[in-house]
Amino acid sequence: MDIATGAGLLAGLTVVVTIILMGGDLKAFYDTHALIVIGGGCLASTLIRFPFVAIVHGLPLGLKFAFTMRSTTSRDLVDELARLAEVARKQGPVGLEKVDTDDAFLAKGIRYVADGYDMDFIRDNLERDRDNFLMHLDEGQKIYRAIGDCAPAFGMIGTLIGMVQMFSNMSDPSKLGPFMAVALLATLYGALVANLFCLPIADKLHVKLADEETNRTLIIDGILMIRDSKSPTLVREMLLAYLPEKHRHEEGEPVPA
Amino acid sequence: MDIATGAGLLAGLTVVVTIILMGGDLKAFYDTHALIVIGGGCLASTLIRFPFVAIVHGLPLGLKFAFTMRSTTSRDLVDELARLAEVARKQGPVGLEKVDTDDAFLAKGIRYVADGYDMDFIRDNLERDRDNFLMHLDEGQKIYRAIGDCAPAFGMIGTLIGMVQMFSNMSDPSKLGPFMAVALLATLYGALVANLFCLPIADKLHVKLADEETNRTLIIDGILMIRDSKSPTLVREMLLAYLPEKHRHEEGEPVPA
Amino acid sequence: MDIATGAGLLAGLTVVVTIILMGGDLKAFYDTHALIVIGGGCLASTLIRFPFVAIVHGLPLGLKFAFTMRSTTSRDLVDELARLAEVARKQGPVGLEKVDTDDAFLAKGIRYVADGYDMDFIRDNLERDRDNFLMHLDEGQKIYRAIGDCAPAFGMIGTLIGMVQMFSNMSDPSKLGPFMAVALLATLYGALVANLFCLPIADKLHVKLADEETNRTLIIDGILMIRDSKSPTLVREMLLAYLPEKHRHEEGEPVPA
Amino acid sequence: MDIATGAGLLAGLTVVVTIILMGGDLKAFYDTHALIVIGGGCLASTLIRFPFVAIVHGLPLGLKFAFTMRSTTSRDLVDELARLAEVARKQGPVGLEKVDTDDAFLAKGIRYVADGYDMDFIRDNLERDRDNFLMHLDEGQKIYRAIGDCAPAFGMIGTLIGMVQMFSNMSDPSKLGPFMAVALLATLYGALVANLFCLPIADKLHVKLADEETNRTLIIDGILMIRDSKSPTLVREMLLAYLPEKHRHEEGEPVPA
Amino acid sequence: MDIATGAGLLAGLTVVVTIILMGGDLKAFYDTHALIVIGGGCLASTLIRFPFVAIVHGLPLGLKFAFTMRSTTSRDLVDELARLAEVARKQGPVGLEKVDTDDAFLAKGIRYVADGYDMDFIRDNLERDRDNFLMHLDEGQKIYRAIGDCAPAFGMIGTLIGMVQMFSNMSDPSKLGPFMAVALLATLYGALVANLFCLPIADKLHVKLADEETNRTLIIDGILMIRDSKSPTLVREMLLAYLPEKHRHEEGEPVPA
Repeated sequence: MDIATGAGLLAGLTVVVTIILMGGDLKAFYDTHALIVIGGGCLASTLIRFPFVAIVHGLPLGLKFAFTMRSTTSRDLVDELARLAEVARKQGPVGLEKVDTDDAFLAKGIRYVADGYDMDFIRDNLERDRDNFLMHLDEGQKIYRAIGDCAPAFGMIGTLIGMVQMFSNMSDPSKLGPFMAVALLATLYGALVANLFCLPIADKLHVKLADEETNRTLIIDGILMIRDSKSPTLVREMLLAYLPEKHRHEEGEPVPA
Repeated sequence: MDIATGAGLLAGLTVVVTIILMGGDLKAFYDTHALIVIGGGCLASTLIRFPFVAIVHGLPLGLKFAFTMRSTTSRDLVDELARLAEVARKQGPVGLEKVDTDDAFLAKGIRYVADGYDMDFIRDNLERDRDNFLMHLDEGQKIYRAIGDCAPAFGMIGTLIGMVQMFSNMSDPSKLGPFMAVALLATLYGALVANLFCLPIADKLHVKLADEETNRTLIIDGILMIRDSKSPTLVREMLLAYLPEKHRHEEGEPVPA
Repeated sequence: MDIATGAGLLAGLTVVVTIILMGGDLKAFYDTHALIVIGGGCLASTLIRFPFVAIVHGLPLGLKFAFTMRSTTSRDLVDELARLAEVARKQGPVGLEKVDTDDAFLAKGIRYVADGYDMDFIRDNLERDRDNFLMHLDEGQKIYRAIGDCAPAFGMIGTLIGMVQMFSNMSDPSKLGPFMAVALLATLYGALVANLFCLPIADKLHVKLADEETNRTLIIDGILMIRDSKSPTLVREMLLAYLPEKHRHEEGEPVPA
Repeated sequence: MDIATGAGLLAGLTVVVTIILMGGDLKAFYDTHALIVIGGGCLASTLIRFPFVAIVHGLPLGLKFAFTMRSTTSRDLVDELARLAEVARKQGPVGLEKVDTDDAFLAKGIRYVADGYDMDFIRDNLERDRDNFLMHLDEGQKIYRAIGDCAPAFGMIGTLIGMVQMFSNMSDPSKLGPFMAVALLATLYGALVANLFCLPIADKLHVKLADEETNRTLIIDGILMIRDSKSPTLVREMLLAYLPEKHRHEEGEPVPA
Repeated sequence: MDIATGAGLLAGLTVVVTIILMGGDLKAFYDTHALIVIGGGCLASTLIRFPFVAIVHGLPLGLKFAFTMRSTTSRDLVDELARLAEVARKQGPVGLEKVDTDDAFLAKGIRYVADGYDMDFIRDNLERDRDNFLMHLDEGQKIYRAIGDCAPAFGMIGTLIGMVQMFSNMSDPSKLGPFMAVALLATLYGALVANLFCLPIADKLHVKLADEETNRTLIIDGILMIRDSKSPTLVREMLLAYLPEKHRHEEGEPVPA
């Protein structure tokens, strides 16, 4: 669970609801027209913009990854892979069968080693999995960004439609106010969808994409070294050298050797 | 038929029509002035911006490719080319004459092999065709993007013209409303043309351009290998290696060898 | 004559005039204030922005090239150069004196060969000419783009000045309308100058710049080969190889050898 | 203390307060709604956008570095490192124990040398420290820029909420004024937060980031040369050669040798 | 004196004053609030954004170079350097002492040669001077661009403050007009400062920066060749070869050798 994403969304909603309630009631801020034009417009332009399969995979995958957090850091992964190398060394590949792990991708790699597949097969399959996964996550990121970019435009379209109706139908200028309020809601919805949801989510996915690429490549390299019966010490050392600088040192406080 | 493009456009139109009907009738949203200024303005600036021949080729080509979908994936193409290599091997180039295929570009390549042209001629002609085609598709993409960029500006121009007339002619302030409604329609049309049609189409063409380049290059390579009497196995293997990662594996679920 | 540029401008003017006449008369859309602020503002900022000599050369050169079209395509140029090589071969350099050509740059090159200058002199002079010309055309392009970028800002400045006067002088609210109309004209003029004239012209010049570079380099290479008494066949072959892909094949329909 | 940052902020506040007081009193410019929507909205979107740990480290670090100034220039650092090399040469590494320095990073390096750690350990630890520090400072910069980018959007959201309430609740048009004033405050707050605080701070951090990278790398190189018992003259010479041109010469007036 | 910059600014002021006078008097367009908010806001954000020393050097240096023009073209500089080489050859370095030149940078180089400094010293000092100068000019350019970017934002802030006061204080709707006029003046000032002054100046400095780099590097190379007692012919030839294409040929009309 990525608490920051949830907390941010909750904070955003709380802020919006609070200032609405401070000035009146929530009912004045619900408008079916505005919901339809923002939701429908973004859906329509996304359908045209992206291949259907990318939308189906990317949207939920993006949401899932924006709200969940890898339970293990890169550093933990290195430790776990070294531990697995230890197991594989003592008990042979068969020993890995009883090993339990949270990470589905790592679990698949362990199963391959335990089942005795050769290195090329393991590398090909895991790399294909990683690339498919990263591609879908990247598509998800692009879709959230595209929605964040077009939501304000559809908000403006909704407001324009509302204003045209208001101006063309009004016989009684005193009713201009409530009509105007409804017209502005579409712009408000568009701005909220973009600035409080889609654009921040896209930015977060951008960061997670880089992390996942590091971690999955790390797992592939570790699994292949375990398959190759490398010693746990060598596994740890080589994987640490592979890590980008910022993942290598978690503590930050150097201790004299 | 690329269902997503059509579905997206249909969804967009439905949304717009729905919320218009929820608040009144469609008639209030038709305005000849606005149609002329958006259509005419975009046409005029496109005529100045792009060479005439690029407009004539690019616009319909772009539309066609935005709405149609290659019936065959890259993976299917590799299979088809391997099948053709099989045919050519068993029956000689002449056997290709009876082969039937959906893809016009592939069909032309097959005809060249069947007719016994030499490799240089086939490569030159097919590459020229591919480059011409990609150039026109790219021009189409750029034209849709340019229209999507200038449509809102012409919408604003239409609204300004309407407002100037409204302000300069009004003797009766009570008529300001309907005039204002008409003036806003130009902005609305411009925003719809850009955000619901031109910009998504341009984005979709951008993706298709990359796919077509992959597929046509694949076909050229395959045809040349068939002309060179390579074995079907070799054809399949080399073409698969050629595919970018994301086209190589369609199923995503690895099966143990 | 580049018909598309003229046709586009004409179409744009027609559209604007048409919708103005549909809603009233043209007189309401003429405003000296707005003309002065757009014209003067763009002139002033362009004077500050670019060296004086660049403005004097670039503006008319850009206009000329936006409205005229090279009568010969790159392909035609290759043919003409091959024909000239034929002449030079049969009658010697002197034979080139009687040759007539539309292209001033090509004509200068021919004269140099006919007059018997050595290769270094010809190359230096023609390359200097080409580079000077391209530099001025590029400056013209940049100036049109800069004007297109600042015209809307000066339109806004004009409108602000008009609105300040309107608000500060009004004693009679009923006159607000006509004042407002005049104020909006500056914004309208700025948007028209930018979107219907300057930005499309700059885009067109950007394309022509690349074409001219190709063509003039082609002419220089051809002239030098003629000076070097290369055979017409070799001239054609080497120049065709030089052409970028899109100029090489005009017909698009391959013919079996 | 970086006086410019403080002076700039003070000047900005003074300007805003002055012109407010010139036209009325400050009270009219305080609005709890606007404060909540800008503060809460920026907080919410920042929480979603960045990892929690980056916010916690980056925000205060950025603020601290925007307001403080390195007491020593790069040139001074070279002099100090040469002086330390002198000390280390005369009294041995132990002599460095009594050395006093303002710069915490330099102090840590000196302690390592005095404690006799080997070169690899010192380099690894100092480089890790430097990279961690630069990463956090860069995150701080990005966060301030992101807030500066979204603050105007949340200002608009606050204004829209205020206007919707104003239009939907108003029965008495004469109260429209004060409601409108409050609605505009959110836009005003957003513009002030972005243009007077966040964006300039982000720009300043961008400059400081480059300076800190230069200085800390300089310190690491100097410390390692001191550990390696290089002569003070060599230390000074090599570090000066290392400096980018603009730090190398402080005085600007050359003196004849 | 760079006449274009002065002429442009004068033209801009004339245009603005003219259209103001055409519609009323200048007094309505002077507002102390607006002056304070634009001037103070830009000053404050610039103080935060740039190091103090960069502002102090960059702003006046930029202004000076925007309004003055190098009296000598690159071509003239080459001629002058060749003439100096002639003098140095005939009368020895001492002969340069009596030479008079307009260019301060060239004069300093001549003095070094006349005083008999060695080549390394001359090169180091002149290059340091050139780099310091170019750095300050570049900072000046960046500061003018930054002011041009934030001036419209502070204009909007001023207008918002004015509108808030107007809406919150108004009891008499008939006074809304003059208040509104004053509020709009801040936006007008911001747009004028940005579009008529800061952004064009920044663009001009960008061009001058490249020219000065060429010229000063040319002078350094020439001075070093004179110090090395190269022949005037060689000096001219090597410096001409050094010039970028556009400075090499001033006349544009080639003359047969």
